[in-house]
Amino acid sequence: MSSRKFFHPEADALTLHRILFALSDPTRLAVVRALKDGAERSSGDLLAESVPRSTMTHHLKILREAGVTRTRPEGMRCLISLRHTDLEARFPGLLDAILAHGRSD
Amino acid sequence: MSSRKFFHPEADALTLHRILFALSDPTRLAVVRALKDGAERSSGDLLAESVPRSTMTHHLKILREAGVTRTRPEGMRCLISLRHTDLEARFPGLLDAILAHGRSD
Repeated sequence: MSSRKFFHPEADALTLHRILFALSDPTRLAVVRALKDGAERSSGDLLAESVPRSTMTHHLKILREAGVTRTRPEGMRCLISLRHTDLEARFPGLLDAILAHGRSD
Repeated sequence: MSSRKFFHPEADALTLHRILFALSDPTRLAVVRALKDGAERSSGDLLAESVPRSTMTHHLKILREAGVTRTRPEGMRCLISLRHTDLEARFPGLLDAILAHGRSD
């Protein structure tokens, strides 16, 4: 049985400034780019060599609490995915417009 | 003679995450919306009743240093405008995609 361990805001409670804040960091932008294809990825898979695990945990919390990502516990792992449908319903075109800009951040 | 008193990053030095950070606050988003028509406005004109002057000065500095706005001293006033052309050249479509979302922030 998988209990819901993590807070996720409802789709209609997402706010523009919180989403922009969540995306206002190069590491968090890189995470969102890595999830852009719609697949779930473990936090371990998202870890960059240059980013300590505790820092990545903090970044993933900011993304989740802004409603950008969903975290799903599975056994010992946490699987993370982009809330593309919720983001698109609330702010159509926003995420794609931001992610269109490659790695020029 | 008007000396250049304020730091403005060059257009090609603008970064996505700094622009997103500059826009990640409701007061700063409101300032950018107020400048969307392309006109220059004084910092006094941009002041909201609920925002202390010192707080607005801080917000305007963040917008300017991220390259979102330009500040031009004129006599005793500072005139502020949106760097729409520079932003559009660097990140086409980004600002319009963000500002398309009305006041649902």
